[in-house]
Amino acid sequence: KRQGFPEIVYGEGKTPEQIISIIQSLRNHNNNVLVTRISKEKAEKVILVCPEFQYHEAARILLWKKEIPKNGHGYINVICAGTSDLNVAEEAAITAEALGCEVHRIYDVGVAGIHRLFDHYQEIQQATVSVVVAGMEGALPSVIGGLVSHPVIAVPTSIGYGANFQGLSALLTMLNSCASGISVVNIDNGFGGAYNAALIYQLAQKGAKDA
Amino acid sequence: KRQGFPEIVYGEGKTPEQIISIIQSLRNHNNNVLVTRISKEKAEKVILVCPEFQYHEAARILLWKKEIPKNGHGYINVICAGTSDLNVAEEAAITAEALGCEVHRIYDVGVAGIHRLFDHYQEIQQATVSVVVAGMEGALPSVIGGLVSHPVIAVPTSIGYGANFQGLSALLTMLNSCASGISVVNIDNGFGGAYNAALIYQLAQKGAKDA
Amino acid sequence: KRQGFPEIVYGEGKTPEQIISIIQSLRNHNNNVLVTRISKEKAEKVILVCPEFQYHEAARILLWKKEIPKNGHGYINVICAGTSDLNVAEEAAITAEALGCEVHRIYDVGVAGIHRLFDHYQEIQQATVSVVVAGMEGALPSVIGGLVSHPVIAVPTSIGYGANFQGLSALLTMLNSCASGISVVNIDNGFGGAYNAALIYQLAQKGAKDA
Amino acid sequence: KRQGFPEIVYGEGKTPEQIISIIQSLRNHNNNVLVTRISKEKAEKVILVCPEFQYHEAARILLWKKEIPKNGHGYINVICAGTSDLNVAEEAAITAEALGCEVHRIYDVGVAGIHRLFDHYQEIQQATVSVVVAGMEGALPSVIGGLVSHPVIAVPTSIGYGANFQGLSALLTMLNSCASGISVVNIDNGFGGAYNAALIYQLAQKGAKDA
Amino acid sequence: KRQGFPEIVYGEGKTPEQIISIIQSLRNHNNNVLVTRISKEKAEKVILVCPEFQYHEAARILLWKKEIPKNGHGYINVICAGTSDLNVAEEAAITAEALGCEVHRIYDVGVAGIHRLFDHYQEIQQATVSVVVAGMEGALPSVIGGLVSHPVIAVPTSIGYGANFQGLSALLTMLNSCASGISVVNIDNGFGGAYNAALIYQLAQKGAKDA
Amino acid sequence: KRQGFPEIVYGEGKTPEQIISIIQSLRNHNNNVLVTRISKEKAEKVILVCPEFQYHEAARILLWKKEIPKNGHGYINVICAGTSDLNVAEEAAITAEALGCEVHRIYDVGVAGIHRLFDHYQEIQQATVSVVVAGMEGALPSVIGGLVSHPVIAVPTSIGYGANFQGLSALLTMLNSCASGISVVNIDNGFGGAYNAALIYQLAQKGAKDA
Amino acid sequence: KRQGFPEIVYGEGKTPEQIISIIQSLRNHNNNVLVTRISKEKAEKVILVCPEFQYHEAARILLWKKEIPKNGHGYINVICAGTSDLNVAEEAAITAEALGCEVHRIYDVGVAGIHRLFDHYQEIQQATVSVVVAGMEGALPSVIGGLVSHPVIAVPTSIGYGANFQGLSALLTMLNSCASGISVVNIDNGFGGAYNAALIYQLAQKGAKDA
Amino acid sequence: KRQGFPEIVYGEGKTPEQIISIIQSLRNHNNNVLVTRISKEKAEKVILVCPEFQYHEAARILLWKKEIPKNGHGYINVICAGTSDLNVAEEAAITAEALGCEVHRIYDVGVAGIHRLFDHYQEIQQATVSVVVAGMEGALPSVIGGLVSHPVIAVPTSIGYGANFQGLSALLTMLNSCASGISVVNIDNGFGGAYNAALIYQLAQKGAKDA
Ligand SMILES: Nc1ncnc2c1ncn2[C@@H]1O[C@H](COP(=O)(O)O)[C@@H](O)[C@H]1O
Ligand SMILES: Nc1ncnc2c1ncn2[C@@H]1O[C@H](COP(=O)(O)O)[C@@H](O)[C@H]1O
Ligand SMILES: Nc1ncnc2c1ncn2[C@@H]1O[C@H](COP(=O)(O)O)[C@@H](O)[C@H]1O
Ligand SMILES: Nc1ncnc2c1ncn2[C@@H]1O[C@H](COP(=O)(O)O)[C@@H](O)[C@H]1O
Ligand SMILES: [Mg+2]
Ligand SMILES: [Mg+2]
Ligand SMILES: [Mg+2]
Ligand SMILES: [Mg+2]
Ligand SMILES: [Mg+2]
Ligand SMILES: [Mg+2]
Ligand SMILES: [Mg+2]
Ligand SMILES: [Mg+2]
Repeated sequence: KRQGFPEIVYGEGKTPEQIISIIQSLRNHNNNVLVTRISKEKAEKVILVCPEFQYHEAARILLWKKEIPKNGHGYINVICAGTSDLNVAEEAAITAEALGCEVHRIYDVGVAGIHRLFDHYQEIQQATVSVVVAGMEGALPSVIGGLVSHPVIAVPTSIGYGANFQGLSALLTMLNSCASGISVVNIDNGFGGAYNAALIYQLAQKGAKDA
Repeated sequence: KRQGFPEIVYGEGKTPEQIISIIQSLRNHNNNVLVTRISKEKAEKVILVCPEFQYHEAARILLWKKEIPKNGHGYINVICAGTSDLNVAEEAAITAEALGCEVHRIYDVGVAGIHRLFDHYQEIQQATVSVVVAGMEGALPSVIGGLVSHPVIAVPTSIGYGANFQGLSALLTMLNSCASGISVVNIDNGFGGAYNAALIYQLAQKGAKDA
Repeated sequence: KRQGFPEIVYGEGKTPEQIISIIQSLRNHNNNVLVTRISKEKAEKVILVCPEFQYHEAARILLWKKEIPKNGHGYINVICAGTSDLNVAEEAAITAEALGCEVHRIYDVGVAGIHRLFDHYQEIQQATVSVVVAGMEGALPSVIGGLVSHPVIAVPTSIGYGANFQGLSALLTMLNSCASGISVVNIDNGFGGAYNAALIYQLAQKGAKDA
Repeated sequence: KRQGFPEIVYGEGKTPEQIISIIQSLRNHNNNVLVTRISKEKAEKVILVCPEFQYHEAARILLWKKEIPKNGHGYINVICAGTSDLNVAEEAAITAEALGCEVHRIYDVGVAGIHRLFDHYQEIQQATVSVVVAGMEGALPSVIGGLVSHPVIAVPTSIGYGANFQGLSALLTMLNSCASGISVVNIDNGFGGAYNAALIYQLAQKGAKDA
Repeated sequence: KRQGFPEIVYGEGKTPEQIISIIQSLRNHNNNVLVTRISKEKAEKVILVCPEFQYHEAARILLWKKEIPKNGHGYINVICAGTSDLNVAEEAAITAEALGCEVHRIYDVGVAGIHRLFDHYQEIQQATVSVVVAGMEGALPSVIGGLVSHPVIAVPTSIGYGANFQGLSALLTMLNSCASGISVVNIDNGFGGAYNAALIYQLAQKGAKDA
Repeated sequence: KRQGFPEIVYGEGKTPEQIISIIQSLRNHNNNVLVTRISKEKAEKVILVCPEFQYHEAARILLWKKEIPKNGHGYINVICAGTSDLNVAEEAAITAEALGCEVHRIYDVGVAGIHRLFDHYQEIQQATVSVVVAGMEGALPSVIGGLVSHPVIAVPTSIGYGANFQGLSALLTMLNSCASGISVVNIDNGFGGAYNAALIYQLAQKGAKDA
Repeated sequence: KRQGFPEIVYGEGKTPEQIISIIQSLRNHNNNVLVTRISKEKAEKVILVCPEFQYHEAARILLWKKEIPKNGHGYINVICAGTSDLNVAEEAAITAEALGCEVHRIYDVGVAGIHRLFDHYQEIQQATVSVVVAGMEGALPSVIGGLVSHPVIAVPTSIGYGANFQGLSALLTMLNSCASGISVVNIDNGFGGAYNAALIYQLAQKGAKDA
Repeated sequence: KRQGFPEIVYGEGKTPEQIISIIQSLRNHNNNVLVTRISKEKAEKVILVCPEFQYHEAARILLWKKEIPKNGHGYINVICAGTSDLNVAEEAAITAEALGCEVHRIYDVGVAGIHRLFDHYQEIQQATVSVVVAGMEGALPSVIGGLVSHPVIAVPTSIGYGANFQGLSALLTMLNSCASGISVVNIDNGFGGAYNAALIYQLAQKGAKDA
């Protein structure tokens, strides 16, 4: 486990009882706990027993309420094109915040309306690292990657239909990007995108402190 | 066969002798002839017998030398990102010219360097129809489609490696584009992209003449 | 946005409330609004608040009731083989009408009964552009493409079973068509097929007016 | 082995020496021998030793020269769209002849030029069984299947490029055909198409003789 | 439509009302009617109005009750390995009977228990044509094809799990069979398998009568 | 490394010089050495320097000449259908011998000629373990698996064409086998099949010795 | 059927009534019976009639309660990484026990936490054979295979999301393992993994007894 | 372009003349130049004109000879399992050095021999970022990812055969890794892996300098 990070529990396929018991064992060690991929119904059952937790519905994340101190300067972009990819983007954003990062959400830019992207030009460029979430054709990371000189973590989503094949289209697009500085995580893995970004964010901070 | 169009011969898998004999039978009918997918070696053998033909190497097209009159105003864009996709782009451009269209070649714009695209903004927008050729992640048609209000014919190419799967990546990207006004032809089918564009170009002309 | 076209809202994944609020903001700008991919249940909730809208069930489209003036001469074919592909065909037909086109629906012709197709021969040939919708083996656009000299937009559907793979079979058929003048949109994308056709239809009109 | 049929040797991956020795052992049993998938070079080596054989280059088949008696009335159609699929069509035609069938070759009909197909209407319909060979989109069997009431054996070929995927496109088209009375063999398996057709042809004859 | 065959209605995706209306229009022409892929619920609604019909549950087929005369000698095998593939096998068997064929059901033979197959050796061999239905690895048609000298129509089913990919495994097995005399129809297409077999069966009869 | 086994070198992608140097370093430790996937040309270069090695051409294996003592009773079957799969079968057979097993080669049995298989019935059944090699439809392991009560290691080969997809067809067949007691290795991995069989063979011996 | 093994019934797709009747016919022959892939609901209905059976919920297996004697020394490992793959692991473990093997369950080791694996080092190495169950990237068998010198049966599971493609990812990983001594069964086939392991386990015992 | 980085030229598909002319235009701007994916033959032609360049054969990279100053403390791991993946690993290592990073090459660790990995335990853990290159089953990044708390860039290679599908197996493995902190680039994209690592390395340095 990365230093300073909360304990992470993958909620998918676990019962509320299992999750409660994991949380309770971890809390003894005075850790913050982050539960991902947990439905509203399950989260509500957990909160009955652990009222210090709060559910983030779009992100499907359950997290301690207590203030998480930002541990550095700089910020992480979480970028997507709009309502369809919002859930995965929020999974990334909440995760990154839980891992101690400041997050800028830029949620209304898409390749088919490139002009809106330029309204955020400065903000996009000045981040330490960007998490770019995209479904359908998944072209947004390529465009962002061409605009910035920091690392881009690309997160394909399963949003789309027909020849989208549950996110395969976006995944292939991102792996084949002709922009340098882009690496890719699994389809819909907002958590993984943020985790990688947070590791990089910490390195930048640590560097700052080491000096 | 579309009125005013040359006869078209698909050169792949035909011997020079077969091509010569087809050309000769068609020439009797006073037609222009366009031979696609023909290698330099085969083309040279044909030219020995039919010296009025000229070979376009990048496009792999063999075409009569005689001046082809532009039959209208307006123009077709043929757009790609650079040297890799140039062959398919040239197949499209030469085909469109052979079908009587004026062609603007815009060959140095890619999604990973979006700024260069804006240098051509006016030219791109004012065309009647655009043929957009792209390999690797194939995101260029989406960006162009968002900038223009005319039809875009997207041509995926097989350029790339690894998870590109011989053009499948670019093909899926284009089919899943979230920009409206894009339709797609087969991988590496520069000819087909231009043929569709030329049909649309002619409709715009015919409209003009009918009135 | 294309001039003279309504505002378009993609209904999939949006709540009735979100749709109502988008409609209300757009209506202020005196626009016609077209909502695609909206279920009957959601549409009925929207109509309660916005009674000037009408639901087209087969097409799953919500549209203003007010008369949409045809803006030109000529017409668009929407062609399919029968009841299975009817929903996608209607999505195309209603969309094209909402975009100001006159539409001829030819819904009873298939490759396995080629004779019926010839009953519509004249009508099919004399259109400005054809949208051809087909599932299963998806061969109809090839046959139509060989009969007409205007552009054909092919729309594969996910209708079929077994080795159909949710429309992949029809999609590949259309991309590999040996008829010239065919371009393809995503599986089940009746909207996209009509949008491309309408852009072409407008170009033919504009040409007419420019002269 | 089917009664009255020659011995069949699959030439692919066998040396000329292996083929000669198989032929010699079979000849002792007074059989006709059919060698499929054999290259010109290998065939010439075999003929040096076994001069009573003749090579069919397009079909890549090696066959005894001796007259093969037609064993019945009626005929088998072998149908394809032209030069590209000719090799597979010839593999089917020569095989069917070697199996004692009368064969009608109809090699110039394709779905993109449906009119030519109607010039052969009577001939196509009156056969006992049809072998229909098609590459690219592979739609020809569907059209033929709709016109005839006898069995159709569909043979996809690997001819095509891009999203053709070495014949997968044609194969899926044929498996998904909405015409009844079509069954399918492996990609490029002209031999198999003809073998099935010949079995059916024999059944029709046998019936005739039994009565 | 094949002479002497009933009218065939594909029930999938049609409402009971649509089916009733089709049946009624066809009955006027004094035809037998075969409705495939129809659920029990829908069938019961149809029978309320058309009580002369009978539902075959395993086959999901609705058929006139009136005696269908066998129109010939000989019989068709319908062969499968047991309970899993029974529905598709019954779709084939009932269809073949409705098309006037005598059917032998051999439903308990599989490749993993090859001995049981030999108990039916004579019966399997003496048929005019065999329809072989198999899921999972789909190897049964290869074994049968090696035992008989009549045509085999192979029907892959979607039964299986894991790397079965909804019948793809069985389909590929059958297309790649090294036994000659096998052709293949779509996954789960029991109807299609029987239709092809019935055409062949009729040819054998017709031969008999012609002589 | 398994006790009593030779050192194993994967020859693919290594130069003769690299192989010689590996062999020499291993020989110092007094080991037998098995080099797999080595071409004739490379092997001959190695033998010039290491004349105590012998090349097995069909198996593409290089092996010490010295007698390998069989270390037990019982034997391993290596089973395939004939010439096409012979190379992979020999890779398995030579490997198993090099690993100290007695091997019975049964190379002329295939599912399409099931009778020949029964000529070997006793021999097939009485082995300790069987390696079954098959290409095309890959059905042989299912049939063998149904006949024997010892473990079967199935080796798919890439032999075939068309919808074989370089061995994918045979691989899926084997993974989906409805016979119990079958496990599968990679396509063309004769070595791996034999290695697994030899481990099992040794266990059976060890048991014998332990007692 | 393997000597000493229970009768095995594949529960998927069978009704409780069918299962009861199979059990009753088999019980007459004084056999133990193992029913796999049976849901809790169906199992409860069977137990009402056959109260001597017990349901193993995680494994989805129904089994006679009577003590199954271990028939040997040594043991089988069943290894997995945790809660997600537990069901398939239990299907393997219960099956192996029902087939007379002693089973060691090692359920908390994964490649991403390699240290825990070393806590079980001795136990893992000293087994006769290992069944290794893994989903997601499926890398565990490779690591285990490198540590042990006995045979490893790898069982991929369908656990995962996105580019996991229902277990395809884990399946390919296991087939491509660079560790020797690994063979693979179908996705989620815990039963098959255990069956192969039990055959090997018996061979080791038999050897012991034969000596 | 990232500050302090050389200009990068993708050599694939460019002639020596094109590469020379690009180099010469860039050199005027006093830049270091890195040419990737260039064959030995082409490189030698370039060096004739530009003798200040040196060719790195394993990496297929052409680079200025002049000393590249390391611009920081810390280092990047480039990790792979041995000779097969060495070319891609060297592409990564040379690229990272050309981008100003100190590189530790750890080239002899694989998942099937996990012990060797522990010999490098300290060195692996103490890096700033790791590039992990793996073919075949591609499991190495998962194991490394579990051992370290810095970011891991995973590079799948196309090394393997059979069900490897040109690197698809390794790619899927890496995307599905259950270790956190792993992101993935295209198959064989050693350059991309290093580029991402170098961006992260620079961030760690910049942080250090900013403070
Ligand atoms: N959404 C997610 N996708 C992939 N991995 C996750 C996700 N959320 C958590 N994880 C990983 O799952 C681990 C916890 O798994 P578990 O012990 O099963 O709760 C964490 O250490 C994370 O690395
Ligand atoms: N059925 C459809 N399939 C694909 N795209 C659509 C569809 N309907 C509408 N769109 C596109 O979606 C855009 C509106 O998306 P949104 O802003 O999310 O409502 C429109 O401009 C159309 O380009
Ligand atoms: N082109 C072909 N494609 C598939 N199978 C074939 C072909 N030609 C021959 N065969 C089959 O191969 C068998 C002979 O194979 P072999 O004994 O290897 O020569 C024949 O009985 C045919 O069934
Ligand atoms: N989970 C399973 N996956 C695959 N095959 C199984 C499974 N369980 C049982 N079987 C096989 O299915 C056979 C019984 O099938 P059935 O006669 O349909 O009950 C047994 O002999 C086993 O070989
Ligand atoms: Mg960048
Ligand atoms: Mg546009
Ligand atoms: Mg046309
Ligand atoms: Mg027909
Ligand atoms: Mg046969
Ligand atoms: Mg067995
Ligand atoms: Mg091992
Ligand atoms: Mg880590």
